[in-house]
Amino acid sequence: MSLVVVGSVAYDGIETPHGRVDRTLGGAATYIALSASYFTGVNIVAVVGEDFAEEDVRFLAGHEIGLEGLERAAGETFYWSGVYSQDMNERTTLRTDLNVFANFEPKLPPAYRSAPYLMLGNIQPALQRGVREQMNGVRFTGGDTMNYWISDYRAELLETISQWDFLLINDGEARQLSGEYNLRKAANAILEMGPNTLVIKRGEYGAMLFRRDAHFMVPGYLLEEVFDPTGAGDCFAGGFAGYLAGQGIDLGAGHIDKRELGRAVIYGSVLGSFCCEKFGVDRFRALTREEIDRRFIEFREFTEF
Amino acid sequence: MSLVVVGSVAYDGIETPHGRVDRTLGGAATYIALSASYFTGVNIVAVVGEDFAEEDVRFLAGHEIGLEGLERAAGETFYWSGVYSQDMNERTTLRTDLNVFANFEPKLPPAYRSAPYLMLGNIQPALQRGVREQMNGVRFTGGDTMNYWISDYRAELLETISQWDFLLINDGEARQLSGEYNLRKAANAILEMGPNTLVIKRGEYGAMLFRRDAHFMVPGYLLEEVFDPTGAGDCFAGGFAGYLAGQGIDLGAGHIDKRELGRAVIYGSVLGSFCCEKFGVDRFRALTREEIDRRFIEFREFTEF
Repeated sequence: MSLVVVGSVAYDGIETPHGRVDRTLGGAATYIALSASYFTGVNIVAVVGEDFAEEDVRFLAGHEIGLEGLERAAGETFYWSGVYSQDMNERTTLRTDLNVFANFEPKLPPAYRSAPYLMLGNIQPALQRGVREQMNGVRFTGGDTMNYWISDYRAELLETISQWDFLLINDGEARQLSGEYNLRKAANAILEMGPNTLVIKRGEYGAMLFRRDAHFMVPGYLLEEVFDPTGAGDCFAGGFAGYLAGQGIDLGAGHIDKRELGRAVIYGSVLGSFCCEKFGVDRFRALTREEIDRRFIEFREFTEF
Repeated sequence: MSLVVVGSVAYDGIETPHGRVDRTLGGAATYIALSASYFTGVNIVAVVGEDFAEEDVRFLAGHEIGLEGLERAAGETFYWSGVYSQDMNERTTLRTDLNVFANFEPKLPPAYRSAPYLMLGNIQPALQRGVREQMNGVRFTGGDTMNYWISDYRAELLETISQWDFLLINDGEARQLSGEYNLRKAANAILEMGPNTLVIKRGEYGAMLFRRDAHFMVPGYLLEEVFDPTGAGDCFAGGFAGYLAGQGIDLGAGHIDKRELGRAVIYGSVLGSFCCEKFGVDRFRALTREEIDRRFIEFREFTEF
């Protein structure tokens, strides 16, 4: 059950209280695809520049991520840099060079168009919609967005998410999108906008999933050391969507095993937590499915009563 | 297995975005005792003034709370008033009149001294220690404290909590007490100070329990409407300590069923959530054990996977 992942592939400069790295592999599509690759076949659709390193191609390919949709354009790869506060709860962007990403128009290789699962990273809502329209008979579509699109591209965003099965955003974005401060009310309002499933990420406080007839909540995994939170939200998305795709679950179907939705949220949380243990994507250089499943069990142990 | 509850009984003036009340029954001991009364026999030790209303005495007695230790002193009852911000995440104190509480020296009626369980609300650490010294063979002692005692009475507080089985504080206080920002490290540091069990309350984000060999976490209950959060932390304490006392659990024992500790945290969360549904203690005028158990089951439903 293969998953198509669309979004940014970038080079990042990251500074946290634990150190700094520059021009390390990053981008939403990278984190989503790496995380999802532990559960299902993944094909990426993104654009990089002429500077994109062969070792990074090999690293992605080493996770069996399909790269036919990784377009190479004249120019440089999207570059972002930022610095985290001492407690890592705040992040200041130092530089954003869109480079080749400025003209990104995702084009799906023909072989990807019949894939059953689609996960759209945070890009312009019209581009997200265009991707979905290239798919034939997609079984579920999910995506992320951000404050900028919610405030400045609201109509376009609403049209886009009306076609999605799930929307995955953080609590501040859920409040902004719905106009409701209370998250239960915010969730009800967002479920009226189209998606049958809403996942709200709360960073260190965990995550929650809402559907019309049920909700699920989990606290965040307690790391002894958060090394670098960059990409944690995207890793959550990859673990969540990857697990559902791997299990062949159709969110739009009448009957769904609610436990499976909870497990998808847990796998999302597990992947998000591993992501924070090293700089950038470094944790994925050695991460195994056994480690993932061990942490999944740990979640059960510290939440069961 | 009766529980002795020591702390303030007060009259509160409360203003939230949903309205305001004045001179309504409040105080840590009140909330703790009311919540614990659903699980175990409770005896209160506190002081009130000559203005303390007969109807409030009847209300507490109606929950079968022993009032032999409720001293009446010349003067007025402790009065506090405060106003909540629009999102209710911040609270400004408008007035604190200690009144008879200024000279509170908790004296345990002889019949209370052999009670097996003791829960100390947030008062001066030396007073908390004095209470414990009046008990004979107490089976578990737990208590709350606050930022003021942590910063200005540190040595006294450390001596006091070194004799406790459990400490129950919020995340900011845990960080302040331990000097560690990371909550896992903070918890390890606090468990070195004496208590075998630490409960960290995180308000809307839930709660966590730590022991040397295990931890337990639960997200907060999602209320559609938070009417008034006053007393929610104390209700958590009452539900937590009340359940443990009702089950006859000894936190200092070698073997403890970890599930029981989790259930105590859930009952604490349940009582804290009910508390927020009405002003002051009003929710306790009609709350039943059946409602409590139904919400306990709800917690299981939205956390199980």
